[in-house]
Amino acid sequence: MTAGTNQYPIPPTMKAWVLGNPDELSLAEKPVPEPGPAEVLVRIDAIAVCATDIEILKHGLPALIEGELPFNKGFTPGHEYMGTVVKLGPSVDEFALGDRIAVEVHAGCGRCSRCREGMYTSCLNYGYRSKGHRANGFSTDGGFAEYAVNNVNTMVHIPDDMPDAEATLIVTAGTAMYGLDVMGGIIAGEGVAVIGPGPIGLMGVAVAKALGAQPVLLTGTRDRRLEMGARLGADEVVNLNREDPVAAVQRITGGKGVQYVLECSGAPNALNEAARMVNRGGRICLAAFPGDPVPIDLAYIVRNNIYVFGIRGEGKSATHRAAALMAQKRFDATIIHTHTFPLTEVPTAIRYASQRIEDAIKVVVQIRTSV
Amino acid sequence: MTAGTNQYPIPPTMKAWVLGNPDELSLAEKPVPEPGPAEVLVRIDAIAVCATDIEILKHGLPALIEGELPFNKGFTPGHEYMGTVVKLGPSVDEFALGDRIAVEVHAGCGRCSRCREGMYTSCLNYGYRSKGHRANGFSTDGGFAEYAVNNVNTMVHIPDDMPDAEATLIVTAGTAMYGLDVMGGIIAGEGVAVIGPGPIGLMGVAVAKALGAQPVLLTGTRDRRLEMGARLGADEVVNLNREDPVAAVQRITGGKGVQYVLECSGAPNALNEAARMVNRGGRICLAAFPGDPVPIDLAYIVRNNIYVFGIRGEGKSATHRAAALMAQKRFDATIIHTHTFPLTEVPTAIRYASQRIEDAIKVVVQIRTSV
Amino acid sequence: MTAGTNQYPIPPTMKAWVLGNPDELSLAEKPVPEPGPAEVLVRIDAIAVCATDIEILKHGLPALIEGELPFNKGFTPGHEYMGTVVKLGPSVDEFALGDRIAVEVHAGCGRCSRCREGMYTSCLNYGYRSKGHRANGFSTDGGFAEYAVNNVNTMVHIPDDMPDAEATLIVTAGTAMYGLDVMGGIIAGEGVAVIGPGPIGLMGVAVAKALGAQPVLLTGTRDRRLEMGARLGADEVVNLNREDPVAAVQRITGGKGVQYVLECSGAPNALNEAARMVNRGGRICLAAFPGDPVPIDLAYIVRNNIYVFGIRGEGKSATHRAAALMAQKRFDATIIHTHTFPLTEVPTAIRYASQRIEDAIKVVVQIRTSV
Amino acid sequence: MTAGTNQYPIPPTMKAWVLGNPDELSLAEKPVPEPGPAEVLVRIDAIAVCATDIEILKHGLPALIEGELPFNKGFTPGHEYMGTVVKLGPSVDEFALGDRIAVEVHAGCGRCSRCREGMYTSCLNYGYRSKGHRANGFSTDGGFAEYAVNNVNTMVHIPDDMPDAEATLIVTAGTAMYGLDVMGGIIAGEGVAVIGPGPIGLMGVAVAKALGAQPVLLTGTRDRRLEMGARLGADEVVNLNREDPVAAVQRITGGKGVQYVLECSGAPNALNEAARMVNRGGRICLAAFPGDPVPIDLAYIVRNNIYVFGIRGEGKSATHRAAALMAQKRFDATIIHTHTFPLTEVPTAIRYASQRIEDAIKVVVQIRTSV
Repeated sequence: MTAGTNQYPIPPTMKAWVLGNPDELSLAEKPVPEPGPAEVLVRIDAIAVCATDIEILKHGLPALIEGELPFNKGFTPGHEYMGTVVKLGPSVDEFALGDRIAVEVHAGCGRCSRCREGMYTSCLNYGYRSKGHRANGFSTDGGFAEYAVNNVNTMVHIPDDMPDAEATLIVTAGTAMYGLDVMGGIIAGEGVAVIGPGPIGLMGVAVAKALGAQPVLLTGTRDRRLEMGARLGADEVVNLNREDPVAAVQRITGGKGVQYVLECSGAPNALNEAARMVNRGGRICLAAFPGDPVPIDLAYIVRNNIYVFGIRGEGKSATHRAAALMAQKRFDATIIHTHTFPLTEVPTAIRYASQRIEDAIKVVVQIRTSV
Repeated sequence: MTAGTNQYPIPPTMKAWVLGNPDELSLAEKPVPEPGPAEVLVRIDAIAVCATDIEILKHGLPALIEGELPFNKGFTPGHEYMGTVVKLGPSVDEFALGDRIAVEVHAGCGRCSRCREGMYTSCLNYGYRSKGHRANGFSTDGGFAEYAVNNVNTMVHIPDDMPDAEATLIVTAGTAMYGLDVMGGIIAGEGVAVIGPGPIGLMGVAVAKALGAQPVLLTGTRDRRLEMGARLGADEVVNLNREDPVAAVQRITGGKGVQYVLECSGAPNALNEAARMVNRGGRICLAAFPGDPVPIDLAYIVRNNIYVFGIRGEGKSATHRAAALMAQKRFDATIIHTHTFPLTEVPTAIRYASQRIEDAIKVVVQIRTSV
Repeated sequence: MTAGTNQYPIPPTMKAWVLGNPDELSLAEKPVPEPGPAEVLVRIDAIAVCATDIEILKHGLPALIEGELPFNKGFTPGHEYMGTVVKLGPSVDEFALGDRIAVEVHAGCGRCSRCREGMYTSCLNYGYRSKGHRANGFSTDGGFAEYAVNNVNTMVHIPDDMPDAEATLIVTAGTAMYGLDVMGGIIAGEGVAVIGPGPIGLMGVAVAKALGAQPVLLTGTRDRRLEMGARLGADEVVNLNREDPVAAVQRITGGKGVQYVLECSGAPNALNEAARMVNRGGRICLAAFPGDPVPIDLAYIVRNNIYVFGIRGEGKSATHRAAALMAQKRFDATIIHTHTFPLTEVPTAIRYASQRIEDAIKVVVQIRTSV
Repeated sequence: MTAGTNQYPIPPTMKAWVLGNPDELSLAEKPVPEPGPAEVLVRIDAIAVCATDIEILKHGLPALIEGELPFNKGFTPGHEYMGTVVKLGPSVDEFALGDRIAVEVHAGCGRCSRCREGMYTSCLNYGYRSKGHRANGFSTDGGFAEYAVNNVNTMVHIPDDMPDAEATLIVTAGTAMYGLDVMGGIIAGEGVAVIGPGPIGLMGVAVAKALGAQPVLLTGTRDRRLEMGARLGADEVVNLNREDPVAAVQRITGGKGVQYVLECSGAPNALNEAARMVNRGGRICLAAFPGDPVPIDLAYIVRNNIYVFGIRGEGKSATHRAAALMAQKRFDATIIHTHTFPLTEVPTAIRYASQRIEDAIKVVVQIRTSV
């Protein structure tokens, strides 16, 4: 079997959602892209909606992209996708036609000093496609489409028994996992507090518990989501409307605080609260942020020897590790999957996710069924 | 030769400066303390004034100390000292009578989980003397006195040819070194910006250059101190009054930014500026802080994958490494030593340091001359 | 409730097994030891036999111990124990009377440069009791007795629902965990091969799988033990008598090899085989060793950029992490517990373990029943 | 100015030494290669002879190279070169025409899991040119020629005032630096012993001292080389013919041993000796190796918690750090440069290096003079 045989006939064009003016998204017909060296063509089978997709729709791409106008008309967003390998670029033998895969976002340029040290999500050539950088749905066309090109190093195999929708959640779990990795990674028996029961926060609870953290705490405002957190492994959940979260963490830990906080809420005071949840020498990962500058008590952070790690994505192949945990069924990520729509209804899917209609958390677009 | 022989006769009492009400410091007669297991008695030969000494004089100790009233009357501050070993506690053979030594601040309890992982400056038993924690001049009597007890693990040998005053600067250089260590430690050929030409900042410049950083940049407002920075190894100095420091760093680095920033100013906007000095994936160490919460642009920090490390002191035996560099004469720390006073004039010494009289930087109290 | 009340009356003397001439062990009456600062007295409820106990019985202690004759007559061996806190030394509040605990072996001196960096199992004052070093059953009296003193930093709480015998296995699981930690610690989705299905190897399989490693392979010669490995989480087991272990690892991994090898056999050729099991850049932890020098192909190790980590014990509080996994019931350590004897039959217990009578793996001495 | 203008006219063919049968090297005329994406064409100005060049001449390339016969006739060896950028591949702006550069050996594929974590010298696609892996002079044509193609991530700028011959030594210093990096990197004030005063060993002495190690010891058999080591910064040198090296290290360190050993001799007993030079918990880097398996006392390594790091080259951009130290004139690498020959006399240069004629250490082939 080689690329281009009849098993996976590649049409010349495909359906793809594209950006127009702010808040405009339209379904277009685009050429199916061609994979280059180290790349494959992925037939997209399913894709989840992420909050950053909504940001892009409103505000454009997060960085100036080489060769693009400031607001990238014609660009296809979407990065939480999975699919089937249907064509191999030159030199690719890491994957075979028909492989089911999920993706992480970033393929670094591989030539800057950050990529050279393994920090490819901090690629210094972000947005320079000609230098090899790709960030699916951020700087190169993404997954609200029938096909997308992916660098082999952004792809992870998924087992036959994992449904499409579940596989779209791997990158979310991978981001949560990376947050735990950068704080130290060895967390069995250590206390972890997660602030904010959004998708990354909920996956953070699941991964932390899967790796043996103890206790795993989750704080938020919506009981339904907190209850999901409990099902995903949180030892205790705290509803801010009923108890001060810092007081709760101190209460639960007998005044010792936790070792790690994964901040996933973007709330203005979350970092200050996180600093008071950890013990001296504790670590905080910021996986979310408020839009505007907020008052931060740096004196407290310095006096208590606290480290704060900002992360812009999934990094250090954490997606592979998350995929492994999910393949081993260590937690049921599908708990956070609430709605499904077809490709033709991407705007509806985004609306459900952004407005949390019917308590939507993860909204998945099922483009076609694999197998 | 054993402890207690005539070579170093120990008097029963000693002169020591003690705290009274806020801003009150008086010279008292105190018993000479007795070294316990793993401790020695140090005859203090010289001590430098640190900004935190001034804080303690104004506001009391930084933490609730076991067995102390909230404002610790009778407590002897001072932590940047050196001296001569004059008595050995039980089981001590790491040092001998007559050894000249400098000290770092923190002896962790050795039994909490932080000490157990080597992070003794984040000791979870801070202030619990009965559990073994000691922080010279912060939680246990310090060095504005004729004698002090020190745990052997806070002490470092100094060579015969290093003058007393220079040796008092080791702990300052050690703090700067620790700041570089926590950011990664391997800095040859990497760009380092230091914000704030106070003692830690100036030592930061010296240590960064000694370890091969390139370029080493220093920003501040006082030309005389910036010029000292240049003598200590800064490749470029930037006076904020004449050029925006972020613009300057970008100009000097050809738009690439630096890898590391050591923030030693405590200025309200310093962290935001530091974030814009580093490249994507860069690291910032906060060795100073503003007293009140300040607006921080967390979005920028997260989007650029920046790590921020608060440090409360010298840690990870960095004082030993700094002492080694100084013993090898890699830089001339005495450049920052501007004034000297005798023990009887500690209040004057503190006044010079706090008010920067005659451009004072490091003010040293020479208690007696060693040898 | 305070130390010394009637709830846990402490007799003046206790039964303890003591070393005599090589291979001589006799039951003696010894004074019950007194806990010092940072120490507690543990009433030993159960203890497992370790291969190193047998070594000590034959060859004496592994290092020259301060104050001891070369062959330590009167010394009580045994280090894999658990029990109940019955008396607190001065300043101890980390534990309360009645707490059930398991122990790790090493309390470092806390003052040498290794302890100061958190590597307390490499304490440079090994065997110097007067400097605070303790290694239960190696340099200070161990657990084949009714009572033992333990430093609080060697102790871990165990939950009420964990049986005594299971708790004695925590330190074994902790050693396996430390082996994974020193190789990098973040192993979800990575291949791990374990050589040798002894107690540490079997616990290595369990911990690796609990942390998400994939695949986890186990090689050995005894089908019964390999089958235990499969029950503890090994994805594949290889019997050397039927397949070359290197070929098997390459077969199972599709020629890619594994990332990590935990060598627990001490077989003469194990390191050479391990080097051929890992991929380029792989890591090997030696938790066992042959008694005599063996030919090693260093050229292969260097050319393939392999790192080899020797570990002498459990380290970096890995015992706490192992205890947490076991408290969360991530694996059933009791699978390796095969025999139980009372305190009066320690020699029989040791004979069963050393001669593998009735396929003995972990032989536990149940001294009394807790609760 | 763009690629291909008259300033650097590129001829269609060039002189290049090529492999024939074992021990045969002949001067041939070859096409000048064309740089691809992320690559430049380097006009080679000077190249040093390395011991591995001699190995390749005798035994062929170290790995099976894609598309090559087992013994690679027509292949051009040589990897320690410097030169001038004379043509840019597509998308290159990291370098400009006319830039003087030195090179490191390895450009990883950038897509395997090792490259993805920054360990590009352990690239799992070693020798697969089609996947992007390049190792100058090992798997792709090297520098005993007038021109060579280089990936931008293997190149480092060199300052105008650094002579060509000195610049050829950067990669050797980089390898030594990497050895110190993998052992921990933060070495100021720590003891380092270097075994073997070959080029890497001597550069190891220089780099260790430049970074503040104390003491730096060098062991070997040739007084002339040991004396060079002293000039490069060794605090003490030990001639094995006059003193047992382990005894010497223990004598010099007062019985404490060193923290790190950089083994550069390949002597059969070097690792066993290194293990007895370090203190408990010490680390050893193997930058050389004996050709055949040798007896190793693994028991000693495990009991003393020693880590052993095999390195196959320069890694982690250490070459950049070494170049920075040399640009800052922290040591005079030219001390080890003993002989110079023109391009036409490469066989003579290799003979001098391999037979150590006239005490040759580093033999440089000056192909043309830059500027």
